[in-house]
Amino acid sequence: MALLEERQDEMIEIRRYLHAHPELSFQESETAAYIAKWYEGKKALVQTEVGNGHAVVVTIKGGKPGKTIALRGDFDALPITEEADVPFKSENQGVMHACGHDAHTAYLLVLADCLIQLQDEIPGTIKIIHQHAEEKPPGGAKSILATGILDDVGTIFGIHIFPNKPAGEISYRSGFAMAGRTYFKLKIQGVGGHGSSPHKANDAIVAASHFVTAVQTVISRRLNPFDIGVVTIGSFDGKGTFNVIKDSVELEGDVRYMTDETQEMLEREIKKIVKGIETLFGVTSELTYTADYPPLCNDPAVTEQAISYLEKGKGDYLTRISESELLSGSEDFAYYLEKIPGSFFYIGCEPKGIEEAYFNHHPKFTIDEDCLIVAAKSVGEIVCGYFGI
Amino acid sequence: MALLEERQDEMIEIRRYLHAHPELSFQESETAAYIAKWYEGKKALVQTEVGNGHAVVVTIKGGKPGKTIALRGDFDALPITEEADVPFKSENQGVMHACGHDAHTAYLLVLADCLIQLQDEIPGTIKIIHQHAEEKPPGGAKSILATGILDDVGTIFGIHIFPNKPAGEISYRSGFAMAGRTYFKLKIQGVGGHGSSPHKANDAIVAASHFVTAVQTVISRRLNPFDIGVVTIGSFDGKGTFNVIKDSVELEGDVRYMTDETQEMLEREIKKIVKGIETLFGVTSELTYTADYPPLCNDPAVTEQAISYLEKGKGDYLTRISESELLSGSEDFAYYLEKIPGSFFYIGCEPKGIEEAYFNHHPKFTIDEDCLIVAAKSVGEIVCGYFGI
Amino acid sequence: MALLEERQDEMIEIRRYLHAHPELSFQESETAAYIAKWYEGKKALVQTEVGNGHAVVVTIKGGKPGKTIALRGDFDALPITEEADVPFKSENQGVMHACGHDAHTAYLLVLADCLIQLQDEIPGTIKIIHQHAEEKPPGGAKSILATGILDDVGTIFGIHIFPNKPAGEISYRSGFAMAGRTYFKLKIQGVGGHGSSPHKANDAIVAASHFVTAVQTVISRRLNPFDIGVVTIGSFDGKGTFNVIKDSVELEGDVRYMTDETQEMLEREIKKIVKGIETLFGVTSELTYTADYPPLCNDPAVTEQAISYLEKGKGDYLTRISESELLSGSEDFAYYLEKIPGSFFYIGCEPKGIEEAYFNHHPKFTIDEDCLIVAAKSVGEIVCGYFGI
Amino acid sequence: MALLEERQDEMIEIRRYLHAHPELSFQESETAAYIAKWYEGKKALVQTEVGNGHAVVVTIKGGKPGKTIALRGDFDALPITEEADVPFKSENQGVMHACGHDAHTAYLLVLADCLIQLQDEIPGTIKIIHQHAEEKPPGGAKSILATGILDDVGTIFGIHIFPNKPAGEISYRSGFAMAGRTYFKLKIQGVGGHGSSPHKANDAIVAASHFVTAVQTVISRRLNPFDIGVVTIGSFDGKGTFNVIKDSVELEGDVRYMTDETQEMLEREIKKIVKGIETLFGVTSELTYTADYPPLCNDPAVTEQAISYLEKGKGDYLTRISESELLSGSEDFAYYLEKIPGSFFYIGCEPKGIEEAYFNHHPKFTIDEDCLIVAAKSVGEIVCGYFGI
Repeated sequence: MALLEERQDEMIEIRRYLHAHPELSFQESETAAYIAKWYEGKKALVQTEVGNGHAVVVTIKGGKPGKTIALRGDFDALPITEEADVPFKSENQGVMHACGHDAHTAYLLVLADCLIQLQDEIPGTIKIIHQHAEEKPPGGAKSILATGILDDVGTIFGIHIFPNKPAGEISYRSGFAMAGRTYFKLKIQGVGGHGSSPHKANDAIVAASHFVTAVQTVISRRLNPFDIGVVTIGSFDGKGTFNVIKDSVELEGDVRYMTDETQEMLEREIKKIVKGIETLFGVTSELTYTADYPPLCNDPAVTEQAISYLEKGKGDYLTRISESELLSGSEDFAYYLEKIPGSFFYIGCEPKGIEEAYFNHHPKFTIDEDCLIVAAKSVGEIVCGYFGI
Repeated sequence: MALLEERQDEMIEIRRYLHAHPELSFQESETAAYIAKWYEGKKALVQTEVGNGHAVVVTIKGGKPGKTIALRGDFDALPITEEADVPFKSENQGVMHACGHDAHTAYLLVLADCLIQLQDEIPGTIKIIHQHAEEKPPGGAKSILATGILDDVGTIFGIHIFPNKPAGEISYRSGFAMAGRTYFKLKIQGVGGHGSSPHKANDAIVAASHFVTAVQTVISRRLNPFDIGVVTIGSFDGKGTFNVIKDSVELEGDVRYMTDETQEMLEREIKKIVKGIETLFGVTSELTYTADYPPLCNDPAVTEQAISYLEKGKGDYLTRISESELLSGSEDFAYYLEKIPGSFFYIGCEPKGIEEAYFNHHPKFTIDEDCLIVAAKSVGEIVCGYFGI
Repeated sequence: MALLEERQDEMIEIRRYLHAHPELSFQESETAAYIAKWYEGKKALVQTEVGNGHAVVVTIKGGKPGKTIALRGDFDALPITEEADVPFKSENQGVMHACGHDAHTAYLLVLADCLIQLQDEIPGTIKIIHQHAEEKPPGGAKSILATGILDDVGTIFGIHIFPNKPAGEISYRSGFAMAGRTYFKLKIQGVGGHGSSPHKANDAIVAASHFVTAVQTVISRRLNPFDIGVVTIGSFDGKGTFNVIKDSVELEGDVRYMTDETQEMLEREIKKIVKGIETLFGVTSELTYTADYPPLCNDPAVTEQAISYLEKGKGDYLTRISESELLSGSEDFAYYLEKIPGSFFYIGCEPKGIEEAYFNHHPKFTIDEDCLIVAAKSVGEIVCGYFGI
Repeated sequence: MALLEERQDEMIEIRRYLHAHPELSFQESETAAYIAKWYEGKKALVQTEVGNGHAVVVTIKGGKPGKTIALRGDFDALPITEEADVPFKSENQGVMHACGHDAHTAYLLVLADCLIQLQDEIPGTIKIIHQHAEEKPPGGAKSILATGILDDVGTIFGIHIFPNKPAGEISYRSGFAMAGRTYFKLKIQGVGGHGSSPHKANDAIVAASHFVTAVQTVISRRLNPFDIGVVTIGSFDGKGTFNVIKDSVELEGDVRYMTDETQEMLEREIKKIVKGIETLFGVTSELTYTADYPPLCNDPAVTEQAISYLEKGKGDYLTRISESELLSGSEDFAYYLEKIPGSFFYIGCEPKGIEEAYFNHHPKFTIDEDCLIVAAKSVGEIVCGYFGI
């Protein structure tokens, strides 16, 4: 803890450097090189280019045998043009660390370094996962798991910073905590024709509109009212000429859910509606239906224990530990939690003196950098508690 | 003509008798007996119980060989309780001659009698068809044709009285003149359940409502805008309890069209919508789809010729000969016209001194009895013209 | 506890008597008389005909001054014809204790008697509310509160038996626990007409079907996915004649929610849809929109404390204390909880040796009568805990 | 007639020249100059730049006093890239005489010249209207009428060539013959938001889809089944991002009708649906609703008389005179017919030896140039008939 305290400025510096040099998902080669360089000469096994991208996995073997835990921080940025007025503004035009992954990486690098220093005391092993491509499906997590590199991990932790809470507040949630998400694209193919002769054509706009009205019933009539689900048609691409009957329309949709059962039900019912519209209007369709990230489910026992470590050691840095509401956002950390018991926490980063902060993904997103030390200390506390040191 | 003139009062008397003694379709045994009795002792072949009911077909063989023409009058009444204030009000509670078939029969009996008197001069044969059950599908016409009794008929005529024109006006239309009609019944079967748990049920009301909204597109998008078609859902029987999800709904519909091609298209498209709703909502359905009477199509040559006879002989009784608009009503006379060239005319019967007459099928329907002599004379004129007498 | 143990058979007897003599909501005069008679000669103040019906409120003044608590049991039955094969089957044709209110009353009468016997030891007051008309809005609870008779009550408890759990299991839920409910009736008035002439009419079935499809969006698009709401159209009364355009349709609906905010949102949005349909189709409408019972919200502190009493004193009779899921059913006990901190518990009554029990309101609903002693003992335990005796 | 016969090659030459040099509506300055030059030195009054564009109106005063008739030919081209393989292919890239206005002008120039030569014999006046901008609303016709230049015209004629009939066939239709047309643009404005939080947004795609499904009822339920009307939504521009709720959608539509009454009804009903959707979903909207060209209605007496002239003089050039079906296309000649009795004919131009000709507006549209002499002769015949020469 004292080690971390001393290095707060260093964390801020790293975070600002990363912020100025953001890279898009699956293209983060320089960020990965920066990370790998950090570990040079340090007593840890560094594996690079892990999985389907530039992930860096660092293994810190403790002085004594014992359990293995993993800590994960993601490092990709977003295709957003920064509008925040900060001295370390993005130097990569059109790319921005608008989701705080710069902070996730900065705290984790320094925490990892401290843990390497404490290495001999640790009765077990720590795996630091610097993950690429969280923002872009299929994401990096699934592929890292597929390498087998985490097969020996008994517990995993991750965090995300959010500006809806002040730095100093950490939130947790047992069980389902963040939504799963599916992307779908539906092309409805009718037959074009002259606007004055509908009987010679087959109007794709009418068919697609009936799809939109009918698909509402999946939520209103098929979803258990006590479950959570959303179906949004975000794009209805039917631009054409006013007096020409449109031959085809392309819809794109977003589906959210909190359990696998709900995912399956929604997929089944949406596909039923698609088939029904085909028959109803004699159109054909092409459907791409891709479940992105599953619902994120924190292990209740791990979560409870981690929170008990935080409460026990409750330092000044932590002003509040709260239970979070369900979040409708999605995270590929969910894949780790499907295989490994663990927990994903939220750390406040609301800039001080601001009434309503710009949220993640906003071009003016900024953070209170105090969140770095809060993240480092609280995750450090959990690790120490876990190893009993 | 003079013969008919003399017997105007007799026609009125007959019509009033029949009006006071109406019988429902397929139950007109006493009316048929009354008709058969009329011909007793007259020089004509009388066949009773023709077809699927109480039809009476009377054959008047002329003195010379020649063509055969048929004249048809229907004699069934409707399940309506009369509200018209007439001295010869229906004595059969709940049954009423609200469509003027009493008048059709009255004029035809007297005209037939006159033709029997002129028998020797007629170079050919006249078949008088007193038809039962026009009001109730499958009707009587089709079954009379099926007996073969009309196989030798070369031309057929019929009339209907309507109160939208004064007595004295006769209307005609070449080609398609009255709509074909289909009745359908659709049962949509879902799964009932408690109003608070839609996911455990399958809401038949929602599925049926989507059927109603989707079926509109059959007219708006599948029908040639220059063709004529109507789909009406006249009954949506989904009465239930507010907090119980309805398990099944029964719809009844009415479909109109002017050509067989349109009939086929409408049937095909409505069935497609039914199948589509099944898939869309996972419900099952039972559909009864019955084309009642076909579109009525008058033979242009016969119509033109008949009108020319009327124009030539134009007596005082006829104040106007007009071309009729298409009518959306249906008639089983259409079956005769599918087999035999002929024409179906409309004769005005608007009661004098009335602003807006009650239309056919209204409980207060009344007629100007002058229409009887107009019908007798104009049909008589056509017959005479036809035989050149 | 021992007192109650001895009187188990008596409870069963009372319950069976009541079961054989059920009375409909607001008509329970004999049941109320039976209850009043029970207290005759006992040291308690008995008030009858309380509120808008036959409620009986019994005040048991303890030997020492102190807080006042209320216990509520409801006693009305349902318009259901019993199909359960029991020797004490309903003798009142078409009326049945299918919701267990007979059991609620039986245990409470005996418990009240025991509390009267312990009267001197009690440091405070107990009010026993035998409530009429829970099953039929507006219910009895609101009117009892309105009399002021409960103004001095500090805490209130009630129970309901449900056959989804075995007798021996008691369930609780802090905060919102049961749904609020709204009934609405919507008449949509168009203009009738002949099926072949839609332009002269204004089709109420088409307008009402668009209402049904549009109202789905209230749940799918206006409800927060993390909130709970249901809109069911349970009745669509549009029965008519297939070839006549329907002039008016009557819909009846059921709306469920867990918070007042959701109630307000649903009411506002449904009314918007009604107005929109009026404009869209040029129809008029009459809407009756009546919020029945509010969401039921248990006081967390009272609930927690009561459960702690049960856990402390955990006798053999209680095999399990579980947290309940949210229930979509509604209860007018919710009105008491709007004014007085309290809690409403669920006690299992699943008949032994049965795979799937018939649920409340089913004509074959039966119970395991062991639930009576469980109810009496657990509520007794809570009362004792509350008064520290 | 003989004069025309001799000049057939000249017509073809002119037509080919114009075909190679097409100009867009309202930009036809060179074509207008070409036309004006044609009349140089000829005994006729030439007015240029008439109305809102480059129209040329030529007045041929006859040797004797009498009635005035007008002949109209349009001369603008379309924004289509020619794909027809002809030696006189368009030299103006992206512009094409794909609707035959080159032929309309070529025949009319030569016919006008011949009429100038016959000038002295003509008992009346002939006005030749070379009209600009028929293809692009508001068109040229309305503005030419507004100048008053046609105030003395008693009768007007025009023709259009169509490749659905062979050259040699002329078609006519009394009364309503071509559809009126309305263009509308509807912007529906909701509120954008994140795909997972529909309650914070207001989904414009859902509102617009309900507009599309509801607007179908204007045709299926509000239009008289014996009238003609079409509503097509040709463009539904709702392209967006799958997981972002769309804030606004822009629709473009095409409305067709055969009478002004139908136009008024359709406009009124569509506007009602727009208002209804606003209320239903709480969105706002902007509607541009512009009636382009009215239904084209040929004067029955003029049409009949003109056809009688053709039938009387029936030369070899005319193989068939037929009654046309109603056409769903629109023409600004309709404006002339609102003020001046007249008739608009169709002349076949189907290329010989071709199974199915490319229709007007197709990039491969070609014609049988025999239609030029047919047009010249038949219009000449009508003019002669009209003046009795």
